[in-house]
Amino acid sequence: MQAPRMRVGVYGDSRISTLPDQLARVGHDVSFLDYDPEPPPVEELDMVILEVREPLLEAAVEKLAERSRRGQIFVHTALAHGVQIMDPLEVTGSVVIALGQLSPDRWAVTAVDEIGETIADLLIGELGASAFHFNDVDRLRLGAAVTYVEVVHTLRGDAVRLLADVLGDAQEAQDIADALGPLRRLPEVAGPVGLRARWESVDNPGQARAFRQSARRVAETQHNQDAELWAIQEEKL
Amino acid sequence: MQAPRMRVGVYGDSRISTLPDQLARVGHDVSFLDYDPEPPPVEELDMVILEVREPLLEAAVEKLAERSRRGQIFVHTALAHGVQIMDPLEVTGSVVIALGQLSPDRWAVTAVDEIGETIADLLIGELGASAFHFNDVDRLRLGAAVTYVEVVHTLRGDAVRLLADVLGDAQEAQDIADALGPLRRLPEVAGPVGLRARWESVDNPGQARAFRQSARRVAETQHNQDAELWAIQEEKL
Repeated sequence: MQAPRMRVGVYGDSRISTLPDQLARVGHDVSFLDYDPEPPPVEELDMVILEVREPLLEAAVEKLAERSRRGQIFVHTALAHGVQIMDPLEVTGSVVIALGQLSPDRWAVTAVDEIGETIADLLIGELGASAFHFNDVDRLRLGAAVTYVEVVHTLRGDAVRLLADVLGDAQEAQDIADALGPLRRLPEVAGPVGLRARWESVDNPGQARAFRQSARRVAETQHNQDAELWAIQEEKL
Repeated sequence: MQAPRMRVGVYGDSRISTLPDQLARVGHDVSFLDYDPEPPPVEELDMVILEVREPLLEAAVEKLAERSRRGQIFVHTALAHGVQIMDPLEVTGSVVIALGQLSPDRWAVTAVDEIGETIADLLIGELGASAFHFNDVDRLRLGAAVTYVEVVHTLRGDAVRLLADVLGDAQEAQDIADALGPLRRLPEVAGPVGLRARWESVDNPGQARAFRQSARRVAETQHNQDAELWAIQEEKL
C-alpha cells in the first residue's frame, strides 16, 4: 500500500536537518514557507516542519499556535530540545513531535503521546531510517554529548594547526594527523622531552592551555596520577 | 646499483618505530639484540638502532658509547629527541642520526653534520619514504604537536563515551560520532538548551570540565567572545 502523500510546509530561518529533502524524496509535497516573524497561513498543510535555530524556536511555536488547527502535525528538528517547547501547539489539538537528526539515517524522537510516537516512527520508517526515543531531559543530555563530540572534533583542528606550524606544511600535517591514533599512554611528565617540556615548547598560550587541559582529562581517564597532578598544579600557577 | 647490505642491530626495550622491519624488508641483515642494561658487543655491526623509551635513552647511549667504533652508524627513533642526546656516541667518531617516525612513510631527521644527513636521506630514500629535517629545538616542538593531536584523538573517546551513555549503545554512538563534523559555531551560551545548559546536564565532573575547557579553546579560535567569557567565568567558580 502506498503511504498517503502529505502536504508539508517548512517554516524556518535555516537548514537544521535534511528532513524536508528526505520527505520530498519519498513523494510528499514539500514546500518552503516564507520565514517571517508573522507566519503565513498553514491551515491547508497536513504537516509543518519548524527548521528554526534554537533561540527562535519558542517564539515560532507561539506564533504558529495562533494558526494551527486540530489534527495537524507539527515537527521541530532542534536536537537538544524535547517536545515540551511545543506545548502551545499541543493544547490546540495538534500532534507535536520533536525530531533531532543524529546522522543521515538516525533520528532522535520525543513525543507527548502514543499518536505522536506512532506517526514519528511511521515517518522515519518511510525514510528508511532508525528512530531513537528520548524523554525531554535526555534530549538535553543528547545535545550536550553531540556538542562535546563536535567540540573535540573542532579542537583537533587546533592541534593539526600546531603540527602544520612546526612542519611548515598544512597538507603534510593533515596527512600525518590522519594516520595518528589515540595514545595508549601519555609521555612521562619529567625529562628533557617529557610532557612538561613538550607543553613548555608550545608558544601560543591558548594552544598550550588546551593541550594541558586535554592531557589532564586523558590522564584522569587513564588513571595516570603523575600526569593528572602535573596538569592540576600548572593550572594553579 | 644495489645498495650495500648492512648488518643492523636493534637495541631497545620496546618497539618505537617500524624502522627495523622496513630495513629488513629492503634487504638489510637486521637482528634484535638482547636488551640488557649492559649492552652486548656491537663491533661487528654497521648500524645500531636504539629503540628505547625516552627516559632510558640517555643511559643507553652512554653504555653503547663504551662499545662503539669509529664509522659505525647509530640511530635513535625517539620523535621528540634531537641528536644532541647522541653526543657521547658522536665523540667516539660514530655517525649519529635522530630519526622519528611521523607516519608509515614520513620520517623526521636530525643530524650533526652533512655525513649524517646524507646517510639518513639515503636510508629513507631506500625505504621509499620522505624525510623532514629539523634542528634539536624543533624536534621537541614536533613531539609536542604530535602529542597534542594524539591527546585530542584520545579525548574524543571520552566524548563518544558520553554519547554512548545517553544512547545506551556504544556502537551506535561510534557510528554517529564518525558522521559528525567540526562545529561552524558553538550553540548560544544562554537559553534552555544553550551551551551552559548542555554543560550543566553532564553529570561526570571530569567530562563536564573537559567539555567546557575544550569549548573555551574552540570559542577562542572562532572569536566567539560570549562562549569564551562564559567558559572562563565558570572556571573561576
